[in-house]
Amino acid sequence: MSAIRFEPSSSLKPKPDESNLEFGKTFTDHMFLLDYTEGKGWHDPRIVPYGPLTLDPAAMVFHYGQAIFEGLKAFRSKDNKILLFRPDKNAQRMNVSNDRLSIPEMDEEAFVEYVKALINVDRDWVPSAEGTSLYIRPFIMAVEPCLGVRASKQYVFAIIMSPVGAYYKEGIHPVKISVESHYVRAVRGGTGFAKTAGNYSSGIKAQEEAKHGGFAQVLWLDGKEHAYIEEVGSMNIFFKIDGEVVTPELNGSILAGVTRDSVIRLLNDWGIPFSERRISIQEIYEASQQGKLEEAFGTGTAAVISPVGELHWLEHTMKINEGRTGEISQKIYDTITGIQNGKLEDSYGWNVLVHEDVKV
Amino acid sequence: MSAIRFEPSSSLKPKPDESNLEFGKTFTDHMFLLDYTEGKGWHDPRIVPYGPLTLDPAAMVFHYGQAIFEGLKAFRSKDNKILLFRPDKNAQRMNVSNDRLSIPEMDEEAFVEYVKALINVDRDWVPSAEGTSLYIRPFIMAVEPCLGVRASKQYVFAIIMSPVGAYYKEGIHPVKISVESHYVRAVRGGTGFAKTAGNYSSGIKAQEEAKHGGFAQVLWLDGKEHAYIEEVGSMNIFFKIDGEVVTPELNGSILAGVTRDSVIRLLNDWGIPFSERRISIQEIYEASQQGKLEEAFGTGTAAVISPVGELHWLEHTMKINEGRTGEISQKIYDTITGIQNGKLEDSYGWNVLVHEDVKV
Repeated sequence: MSAIRFEPSSSLKPKPDESNLEFGKTFTDHMFLLDYTEGKGWHDPRIVPYGPLTLDPAAMVFHYGQAIFEGLKAFRSKDNKILLFRPDKNAQRMNVSNDRLSIPEMDEEAFVEYVKALINVDRDWVPSAEGTSLYIRPFIMAVEPCLGVRASKQYVFAIIMSPVGAYYKEGIHPVKISVESHYVRAVRGGTGFAKTAGNYSSGIKAQEEAKHGGFAQVLWLDGKEHAYIEEVGSMNIFFKIDGEVVTPELNGSILAGVTRDSVIRLLNDWGIPFSERRISIQEIYEASQQGKLEEAFGTGTAAVISPVGELHWLEHTMKINEGRTGEISQKIYDTITGIQNGKLEDSYGWNVLVHEDVKV
Repeated sequence: MSAIRFEPSSSLKPKPDESNLEFGKTFTDHMFLLDYTEGKGWHDPRIVPYGPLTLDPAAMVFHYGQAIFEGLKAFRSKDNKILLFRPDKNAQRMNVSNDRLSIPEMDEEAFVEYVKALINVDRDWVPSAEGTSLYIRPFIMAVEPCLGVRASKQYVFAIIMSPVGAYYKEGIHPVKISVESHYVRAVRGGTGFAKTAGNYSSGIKAQEEAKHGGFAQVLWLDGKEHAYIEEVGSMNIFFKIDGEVVTPELNGSILAGVTRDSVIRLLNDWGIPFSERRISIQEIYEASQQGKLEEAFGTGTAAVISPVGELHWLEHTMKINEGRTGEISQKIYDTITGIQNGKLEDSYGWNVLVHEDVKV
């Protein structure tokens, strides 16, 4: 890993009001950039003022979507430490995504160092208000100017950061979800397990139609049989059925969420019956009919836990826990956010401290 | 449609050697740009010098791949006319893609006028050597700087153009194709019928593995049963079996190719038995075993016709027409390229003349 070049911004922006942060709209003073050229590898790591990227209109990312990303958060603890949540998991997954899209592998330790270095430069941007955090967005895109359909020979890896507010302003809040019966997010053999740009654009239309129908999001079913549950919006999904917590197994079309992994770890430690397996929407419906569908919640970096209060499938409405947040959902939320912001002991070693003396 | 603003390039580039044009690597002197902003619609059509685009690093296209494109060609006839092949079909399909990705609709007549205006400005770039053409790439991308996963409120529509050489330098040439048994291009409910950026990046890995195995491309099977034929590489596919030409029906996961449509029109006019239907790889294998697999060819804008000489599926090798270009493949190729370059009469009204007096 070569030294990071640092070009400080000559004019620092005012910090936004921490009580009114919109997700992913305000960005910090600097960004991190790293180039890849065939034959030369990843090179020229640098932290520069946040500002526009200049790309040839034939840059492959515009045409063939060869692009992947990650998302993680840093938190400011009460004693003013900056804690980064499980960045090693994002580094690993980035290379899973890279492999699927034929993007060259990146050094995972370097990835974490780059994230830490950028946070350190803009550490004043990590907000301190209850529930706030610094959202970190590393991404890679193909920039070779060429219209041939093949892997690019040039890439840019970038990290940008945005202070974000509490996802739930008035405590966590169960949402209404529509089970998607027409559109499909991913299918085995496709890119569903990778964090690729194209996976997200393909879900927008279903999401818009759900919003139009009064739902917060869609529950995705598998692309093959339209029978098995995959994800909810862009989150993983868990159900508690008759005392057991279940989540769809990672079958090739589901993203391996970092929060999903953390939730599983907690459930196992708490001795709560848990399994990863195929779950049909029919099974969920039957459990609901029998009064055994006790909880349902999405998991993801942005919200941590998003309880499902109501599930609509064809002509059926399934009310879950009378539309209230379940006990386990709340306990998981409190535990993960507590570890993240340093209020609870981090017995898992999930937090990575961002020292002030990171070399740039 | 508002008037197109024209900012001429102050220094024109030298034209490349027409005998040695690489696909999509050299671009003309100008490009076309049009902006979209929510509330204001598509606005400010302009032709400006070809040059870099400046985008915020949070521009949504980099993160969520909300981007679509088209591809079409203009040809210079022997009597020095410039002929554009079926641009109305691209305009229609662009809006199909826009709808699938929740990108605002564009006026289809304006699309054609923009293409014509740009060609007219750079008409000296339309090459005249046998088999050459000007490849035209219109594309749309989401440019709002926002990390929320939703439809962008700002877009850029751009057109860039590249002179391209004969696809087959020594006559059309049958290729070896591997039937893809692991990766999937698209599934019904997904985006396979739209020309989205993400559809192409997801196919790169399979294509690389096929190349590594000595094949020119992969034949994609359906994502549901891995049994039915969909496309070949980024082309549509046709087979001639026992005197009948067949192609997979447009089932929601297959792109409605303009060349595909033109081929079907010719086959019908020529009275050749033809059907669009589900075709299993098993059926192709059995036809091959019985000596009834007479021809196979891909169709697309770049190559027009790409004959398949050999098909590999699991442990089976199917040799087609002894590895030679079939009679119908050749006749279609000669007819379409003949109409495109003005040597044959255009009885279908496919060519659109690009007049010299297009207003800019």
